[in-house]
Amino acid sequence: MSKEPRPEIPRKTVYRLSIYLRCLHRLKTNGIRTVSSDALAKAAGVKSAQLRKDLTYFGQFGTRGLGYDVELLAKMISQLLGTSSLQPVILVGVGNLGAALLSYQGFQQEGFEIIGAFDAATDRLKARNLPRPILSIDALPAFLKEHRVKMAIVAVPAPAAQEVANLLVEHGIAGILNFSPAVLQVPDEVVVNNVNLAIELENLSYFVRA
Amino acid sequence: MSKEPRPEIPRKTVYRLSIYLRCLHRLKTNGIRTVSSDALAKAAGVKSAQLRKDLTYFGQFGTRGLGYDVELLAKMISQLLGTSSLQPVILVGVGNLGAALLSYQGFQQEGFEIIGAFDAATDRLKARNLPRPILSIDALPAFLKEHRVKMAIVAVPAPAAQEVANLLVEHGIAGILNFSPAVLQVPDEVVVNNVNLAIELENLSYFVRA
Repeated sequence: MSKEPRPEIPRKTVYRLSIYLRCLHRLKTNGIRTVSSDALAKAAGVKSAQLRKDLTYFGQFGTRGLGYDVELLAKMISQLLGTSSLQPVILVGVGNLGAALLSYQGFQQEGFEIIGAFDAATDRLKARNLPRPILSIDALPAFLKEHRVKMAIVAVPAPAAQEVANLLVEHGIAGILNFSPAVLQVPDEVVVNNVNLAIELENLSYFVRA
Repeated sequence: MSKEPRPEIPRKTVYRLSIYLRCLHRLKTNGIRTVSSDALAKAAGVKSAQLRKDLTYFGQFGTRGLGYDVELLAKMISQLLGTSSLQPVILVGVGNLGAALLSYQGFQQEGFEIIGAFDAATDRLKARNLPRPILSIDALPAFLKEHRVKMAIVAVPAPAAQEVANLLVEHGIAGILNFSPAVLQVPDEVVVNNVNLAIELENLSYFVRA
């Protein structure tokens, strides 16, 4: 993995870059070669001033009156995000949601490969209909030592989540996608992104009733 | 559904209220009856000034030196969020991810019930191993007319998502939890929360490499 110095980009900007990348892929699929900042901003659902500001991290780019080169811009964003090559990820917790994530083809399409799946419940270790064998959580440290993985998806129940997070951090995981409702306490240098499906629905519920 | 006037609460505050609610449930399970703002803030992973500010939406509350009544505060937040009774939700798109969401028990635990699931692919309509039958997308308008549902989960592929969103909005859906990578265009009064799992991983990927 290359370690050239990279600009300090705020987290929200990185999110938006991901969205621009998806819009660019769609444009490319539709045979479109250049796009104006207005058109790309509209497709991404942001203001065009915002888009132009976000893209200044790539330095001077785009030609006035012509817009951005779709393929080139997609390539630059993808390199910055680190998804230009397939990224390895592990999954801990293969219950209902974890099993679904394991079967979900969206990750691979977007440049992520779940190279190991772990669970504490031994009856799940030989679960059928899953794309790969489930390993015992005891095998996690050795696995992480052997494979250079930096990211983990945590889909264990809330009471187990902190303990799992501690184990992951101890063995070199630097980024956790947390599907458990637990609030994880991790060292400052570790990044946690939380996806709590019930909280998303609850949030909708509030605004729908307003 | 009650329609009493409610305070205008920012979306981020509503998210945090959901997190406080989960922390309070855990405290209650552990037999704890009162909690200080410092302790609750720590459990929720926010600053205590933030917590106190968020709770001012409930008016004067809590006793100096004694803290908050765990059960009462949980009840007030739950009522505000509209999850004190079971909320009906529909699901559109029963592919890999949709099927997982349908089997996911977390929703029901948190006060949401998927009362209908819809798909365009007729071979999925009789899918086995799913907790309920899948209906044809053609049945959606009649279903929404019969049941008073305000929220929908969209888990269709990106190219189909906008068309599905239009159909939902046309038939009275006011809140959409969007799992597709598409940026949905909806009227101002409709709320869309986006959950894009690949984007979450991509975001981690950037920070893990930094």
